[in-house]
Amino acid sequence: MKALVYHGPGKRALEEKPKPAIQAPTDAIVKITKTTICGTDLHILKGDVPTVTDGRTLGHEGVGVIDQAGDAVGSFRPGDRVLISCITSCGRCANCKKGMYSHCENGGGWILGNTIDGTQAEYVRIPFADTSLYKIPEGVDEEALTMLSDILPTGFECGVRNGKVKPGDIVAIVGAGPIGLAVLATAQLYSPAEIIMIDLDDNRLDVSKKFGATKTINSSDGRAVENVMGLTNGKGVDVAVEAVGIPATFELCQKIVAAGGHIANIGVHGKPALLHLETLWSHNITLTTRLVDTETTPMLLKMVKSGKLQPKQFITHRFALNDVMKAYDTFMNAAKEKTLKVVLAA
Amino acid sequence: MKALVYHGPGKRALEEKPKPAIQAPTDAIVKITKTTICGTDLHILKGDVPTVTDGRTLGHEGVGVIDQAGDAVGSFRPGDRVLISCITSCGRCANCKKGMYSHCENGGGWILGNTIDGTQAEYVRIPFADTSLYKIPEGVDEEALTMLSDILPTGFECGVRNGKVKPGDIVAIVGAGPIGLAVLATAQLYSPAEIIMIDLDDNRLDVSKKFGATKTINSSDGRAVENVMGLTNGKGVDVAVEAVGIPATFELCQKIVAAGGHIANIGVHGKPALLHLETLWSHNITLTTRLVDTETTPMLLKMVKSGKLQPKQFITHRFALNDVMKAYDTFMNAAKEKTLKVVLAA
Repeated sequence: MKALVYHGPGKRALEEKPKPAIQAPTDAIVKITKTTICGTDLHILKGDVPTVTDGRTLGHEGVGVIDQAGDAVGSFRPGDRVLISCITSCGRCANCKKGMYSHCENGGGWILGNTIDGTQAEYVRIPFADTSLYKIPEGVDEEALTMLSDILPTGFECGVRNGKVKPGDIVAIVGAGPIGLAVLATAQLYSPAEIIMIDLDDNRLDVSKKFGATKTINSSDGRAVENVMGLTNGKGVDVAVEAVGIPATFELCQKIVAAGGHIANIGVHGKPALLHLETLWSHNITLTTRLVDTETTPMLLKMVKSGKLQPKQFITHRFALNDVMKAYDTFMNAAKEKTLKVVLAA
Repeated sequence: MKALVYHGPGKRALEEKPKPAIQAPTDAIVKITKTTICGTDLHILKGDVPTVTDGRTLGHEGVGVIDQAGDAVGSFRPGDRVLISCITSCGRCANCKKGMYSHCENGGGWILGNTIDGTQAEYVRIPFADTSLYKIPEGVDEEALTMLSDILPTGFECGVRNGKVKPGDIVAIVGAGPIGLAVLATAQLYSPAEIIMIDLDDNRLDVSKKFGATKTINSSDGRAVENVMGLTNGKGVDVAVEAVGIPATFELCQKIVAAGGHIANIGVHGKPALLHLETLWSHNITLTTRLVDTETTPMLLKMVKSGKLQPKQFITHRFALNDVMKAYDTFMNAAKEKTLKVVLAA
């Protein structure tokens, strides 16, 4: 089968690989119909994620059809249409029992396209299939659901829920890429008063307005802090969401958060950042980090089915899996190509 | 009257000053009977708190008797015995209305011994007396209540509540000074399974055992992380409380917190610290900072009255206000003098 394979920092190739086989009775093999590329795949290609080794098939998002189900799989049969969660979970360890599936103690967590082969291929093996796949409801557009493998639960859980967004809040989202836009889309479920989108790219800021941002700030002039303070009577924002993953944007969040506010980090960071405790120690803030647990995937599926969330609007480009190398180029040159998410049809 | 006056980093003196007068109808003048010295006063003397200027009377803790009450003060009359909160609050601004008294928008917050003259004197002016003083209940030992001005609410609100300590948790407290011990004393209200006390001083660790620590670690060998991991099956602690205020102890908290755990910062920091987002981004942690709001003072008063909290055990030394210079020396040489809290009788 065809697969997009990582060969160390900066190196990727479309290659032939053997089709995966059932290894444990709780496994399922899924024939991929649609997959996508994540900002995290770019972090991997930068060398920021040392657990990903040479030869790994990338990808942790996608939808498909059950090809084979192991003997212990109870919820799925060949032919079932499924959504793949980026988080694999046994469902029975201490962490899974408290809903922290991202830290499954039985070999789950974020493993797809990381420590085992991923979804940017014709087939993928999904361990713990019963607790890591979701049946696709009738009448829901399959392609749009690729946004529910990772970016929508990530934006919602790590940004909106961790940021404790509530009615009347002023929320700033730093980074208007797909994850920042996923925060923007799902923050509106809690009716904040204002959502300020901050980015360097005017096109993405224009897109943000269509997604529901009430204010946008292009931070390329280095005056983002003053601009936010101007919009908030000098108090700062109730919630600052970091959706980039570099020290500069993380420091910006520290400077714009109001006393009593929340900084919700989503970014995949490759290095440490300074935390300004000399001012923040008395600022009554909460700072959170999180690898998405995808505990809210069933809820998000309902919101998509009802039409209250429209994940199709994230998709700007479509390719065949055979063109995955070009799809990566398009995703990496996001500003020039005006790319949000690219969908690959296998 | 006598007052302990700050004269820039490293400089303090016992001096004669005029007795304070009512400035606003919501003020009260309190005749101090007992006051104490806080670790924050030492941070001020190090120059870590730039809002404190030359000539300021230090101190933000104490009990006393109402000497004069402004015309708008409704709850207190001359002769009433009162507990002074380290936090002054108007009770009516947006922040006070949500219980964040530390960030009172009408000139309250932590102002005593900071931006206005404090309690290490014979008399102190308390603005917003109705919402910044508490009547001392009958039968409660006055001297012990000096521990309720700051350290007990600080340990409880910034450490225990922000750390979300719950039954069965493993809690580590880094720093066994008065604030760390206040966390230890109040954490037990929520029945954690283990409380690990970490400090450099064996005497303070011995004291911690008497206060209820189940394990102690002397970190002077540089092996605190390995020791904590050995006590927690390699997982780390559910709650790590930083009660020192330097980068090293803050970094230790980052290394010992379990996935899904909480870091509750209490320390007054004078400089930034590194936040290891390259590992923590996916570790599902919550990090909090807080200037105490003293919103739990009424509850803590009830716990003291019932005997469930014994704040007297924090007091190791007693001095007359006239000996405040010597009291500071004793408090600063805590390891040698085995000092926890010193009480000054005015």
